[in-house]
Amino acid sequence: MDERADEKETARLEAFSDGVFAIAITLLVLELKVPKEVGSDEALANALAKEWPSYVAFLSSFATIGIMWMNHHRLFTHIRRTDHWLLVFNALLLLGVTAVPFPTGVLAAYWGHPGERVAAIVYSGLFVVTAILFNLLWRYASGGHRLLRKGASAAAVQAITRQYAFGPLLYLLCFGLAFVNVTASIAGTIGLAIFFALPPRSRPQL
Amino acid sequence: MDERADEKETARLEAFSDGVFAIAITLLVLELKVPKEVGSDEALANALAKEWPSYVAFLSSFATIGIMWMNHHRLFTHIRRTDHWLLVFNALLLLGVTAVPFPTGVLAAYWGHPGERVAAIVYSGLFVVTAILFNLLWRYASGGHRLLRKGASAAAVQAITRQYAFGPLLYLLCFGLAFVNVTASIAGTIGLAIFFALPPRSRPQL
Amino acid sequence: MDERADEKETARLEAFSDGVFAIAITLLVLELKVPKEVGSDEALANALAKEWPSYVAFLSSFATIGIMWMNHHRLFTHIRRTDHWLLVFNALLLLGVTAVPFPTGVLAAYWGHPGERVAAIVYSGLFVVTAILFNLLWRYASGGHRLLRKGASAAAVQAITRQYAFGPLLYLLCFGLAFVNVTASIAGTIGLAIFFALPPRSRPQL
Amino acid sequence: MDERADEKETARLEAFSDGVFAIAITLLVLELKVPKEVGSDEALANALAKEWPSYVAFLSSFATIGIMWMNHHRLFTHIRRTDHWLLVFNALLLLGVTAVPFPTGVLAAYWGHPGERVAAIVYSGLFVVTAILFNLLWRYASGGHRLLRKGASAAAVQAITRQYAFGPLLYLLCFGLAFVNVTASIAGTIGLAIFFALPPRSRPQL
Repeated sequence: MDERADEKETARLEAFSDGVFAIAITLLVLELKVPKEVGSDEALANALAKEWPSYVAFLSSFATIGIMWMNHHRLFTHIRRTDHWLLVFNALLLLGVTAVPFPTGVLAAYWGHPGERVAAIVYSGLFVVTAILFNLLWRYASGGHRLLRKGASAAAVQAITRQYAFGPLLYLLCFGLAFVNVTASIAGTIGLAIFFALPPRSRPQL
Repeated sequence: MDERADEKETARLEAFSDGVFAIAITLLVLELKVPKEVGSDEALANALAKEWPSYVAFLSSFATIGIMWMNHHRLFTHIRRTDHWLLVFNALLLLGVTAVPFPTGVLAAYWGHPGERVAAIVYSGLFVVTAILFNLLWRYASGGHRLLRKGASAAAVQAITRQYAFGPLLYLLCFGLAFVNVTASIAGTIGLAIFFALPPRSRPQL
Repeated sequence: MDERADEKETARLEAFSDGVFAIAITLLVLELKVPKEVGSDEALANALAKEWPSYVAFLSSFATIGIMWMNHHRLFTHIRRTDHWLLVFNALLLLGVTAVPFPTGVLAAYWGHPGERVAAIVYSGLFVVTAILFNLLWRYASGGHRLLRKGASAAAVQAITRQYAFGPLLYLLCFGLAFVNVTASIAGTIGLAIFFALPPRSRPQL
Repeated sequence: MDERADEKETARLEAFSDGVFAIAITLLVLELKVPKEVGSDEALANALAKEWPSYVAFLSSFATIGIMWMNHHRLFTHIRRTDHWLLVFNALLLLGVTAVPFPTGVLAAYWGHPGERVAAIVYSGLFVVTAILFNLLWRYASGGHRLLRKGASAAAVQAITRQYAFGPLLYLLCFGLAFVNVTASIAGTIGLAIFFALPPRSRPQL
C-alpha cells in the first residue's frame, strides 16, 4: 500500500474517531435536565441554581473529552499508518469516550446527595481507564516507529511517551481523592483538563 | 510544518467543529415533545398548537446555530494554521454551541408560563457569551495575521473584525430585553439570525 | 477564489450536511420505545408487535431521509461553488431534515389511535415542505448555471430540474391522502421512497 | 466520470456511513440509565451493580457495531466506485446499524427478567440480518469486479467473499441459542466480536 493510500487509511480512522468524540461531547448536554414545572421566576432561578452539580459535571466532562480529542489529534499528526491492532486499541479508547455521558449523568444526579462518593469513584475511574488506553494506543503505534510517519522525530516521540505516562497516575490521584472528598476529586479532574489545555514548553505546537 | 500539513490541521479542526455544530443543531429536535395521549384529532391538533413556544425556540436556536456555523465557516476560509490557543478558544466556542439545547429546552418549557423571564435571560445570555467567544477566537487568530493564510487581504480581515464587534452588543440588547419582555427578546434573537443570514454588501461572498 | 478553493467550499458544506443527515436518520431510533416491564416472553412479544406503527414510521422516515441524502449527494455532483444564498437554502433544507424525528414520533404514538389523522397530516406535510426546498435549492444553484461545475451538461441539469418538479406534487398527494386515509398516506410515502430508490433510466448513474 | 471523481463519490459515501456508525455507536450510552434516587453510597453501588445486563448489552453492541465499521472500512479499501444499487444496499445496511440501539435497550431492560428470551431473539436476529446485508453489499460490488478499484487482487476479493459467507451462519447460531439460553446467545455475540477483532492470517493487513 503506497503512502497516499496509507494517509487515506488514517484519515478515515481519524474522521470516525472525531465523529465519536464530537457526538459524545455533544450528548453530554442531555444530562442537563429542564426543571419540572415551577411557579415563578424566582422558583425557576432557584431550581436552575440547584442544578450546579450538573453544570460542573458537564464542564468537567466536556473539558476532559476535549483534552482527549486534542491528544488524539496530536498523536495522529505522528501516526500515518493503521493496522489491525491500532484499530482495536482505538476502538477500546472510543469505548471509553462514548461511555463518559453515563458516569457524568450519575455524578450530576448524586453529587451533594447520599451516594456521591460512589458516583465520583465511577466517574474518576473511567478517566483512569481512558488514560491507560491512550498509553496503550501510543506505545503500540510508536514502538519501533511501527506506524509513525517517516519524518517523525525520535525526540518528539519520546517526549510524548514521557508525558503520557503521567496521565494515568494523575487520574489515579483523582480516583483516590474520590474516596476521601468528592469535591476535591472533581476539582482535580477539572484542574487536570486546564493543566493539559495550557501549552507546555515541551510541546510549543500542539 | 509545511503548507499542506497546515491545511490538514485546520481541516481536522473544521471537521470536528462541524460535527459538533451538526449534532447540536440536530439534537434540538429532542426538545419537541410528542403530546401525551389525547382522545381525538382535534385534541391532538390543539395539543400540537399549544406547543408553539417549543417550535419558536427550536427555530430560533436552529437559526442561531446555523449562523454560528456560517460564521465559523467564514472565519476558516481565512484561518489556515492552528496552534494550541486556537484549539482552546475553539473548544470554548464549541462548549457554548453544545450547551444551546439546554436553555432551548428551558425556554420551550417555560415561555408563556411563570418563570419565562428567567428562561429568556438564560437563553439570550448564552448567545452573548458565544458572541464574545467568536470575537476572542477571531482576534487571536487574526492579530498580526498570526494564523491566517498568506493571501488574506488586510481589508477583508478588518471588515470581519469590525462586523464581529457588533455581535456581543446586539445579543446584549436581546439579553436586556429579556428582563422587560420575553417575546421581544426572542423576536430580537430571531431577527438577528435573519439579519446575519442576509448578504451584507461588505461580504458579497460568504 | 480559484477552483480548488471552490471545491473546498462545497466539500465543507457537503460534510456539514452529511453530518446533519446522518444524525437525523440515526436519532429516529430514539422514537422506538422499550416496552414498560411486562411479565413474560409472550407479553413482551405482544408488546413489541403492538408497536408496529413505530417500526413503519421509523422505516418510512429512514427511507425518506435516505432518499433526501441521495438527492443532495446527486445535486452536489453538479454544484461546485457556494455563495451566501446557497448556504441559506441549504440551511432551510437541513431545518426540514432535522425536524423529521418529531412528526415521526407523533405518527408512531398516534397511528391506530384517535388523532392519527392529524399525525399523518403533519408527517406528510413536512415532506411537502422539504420537497419544495429541494427545488428552491436546485433552481437557485442551477439557474443560469450559477453555481454548477464547468462541465455540467445542460441536458443532465434540465433532467434533474424536470424530475424534481414532480417531488412536491407527489408528496402533496400523500398529504391529501392523510385527510382521507392514514394508512394510504404512509403507504404513499414509503412507495415514493422505493420509487426514488429505483434507478430511473434518465439517471443511469446516480 | 474519471478516477478522481469516482474516489470523491466513495469518499462521501464512506463519510456518511462513518457518521451513521459513529452516531449509532455513541447513542448506545443513552440505554444506560442513571439509578433513581437511592439513599446511600452502598445503595448506589448496588443499584449500579444490578444494571450489569445494561453494561454487557452496551459492550456487546459497541463491539458488534465496531466490527461492522471495521468491515465496512475494509470493503471500501477495495470498492472505488458507486452506483445506484450500491447506495441502496449501503442504505439497507445502515438501516440495520441505526436500529441497533433499540434491541440493545430491550435486552438491557429484560435480561434477567421474564421476557428475556424474546429480547435476546430480537437482539441476535438483527445481527443475522445485518450480516446478510453485508454479504449482499459485497457480492454486488465485487461481482465481476463491478465497482472495485482497478488493482484489486482477485485472491483478496475471493478471500473476503469466503469469510463473509460465514458471518450470517455464525450469527444464526447465536439467534438459535437465544431460544435455548439467553446468556449463551449474548456470550456468542460477544465472542464473535472478539473473534473478528483478532487479526486472521488471511487478512494480515485490515
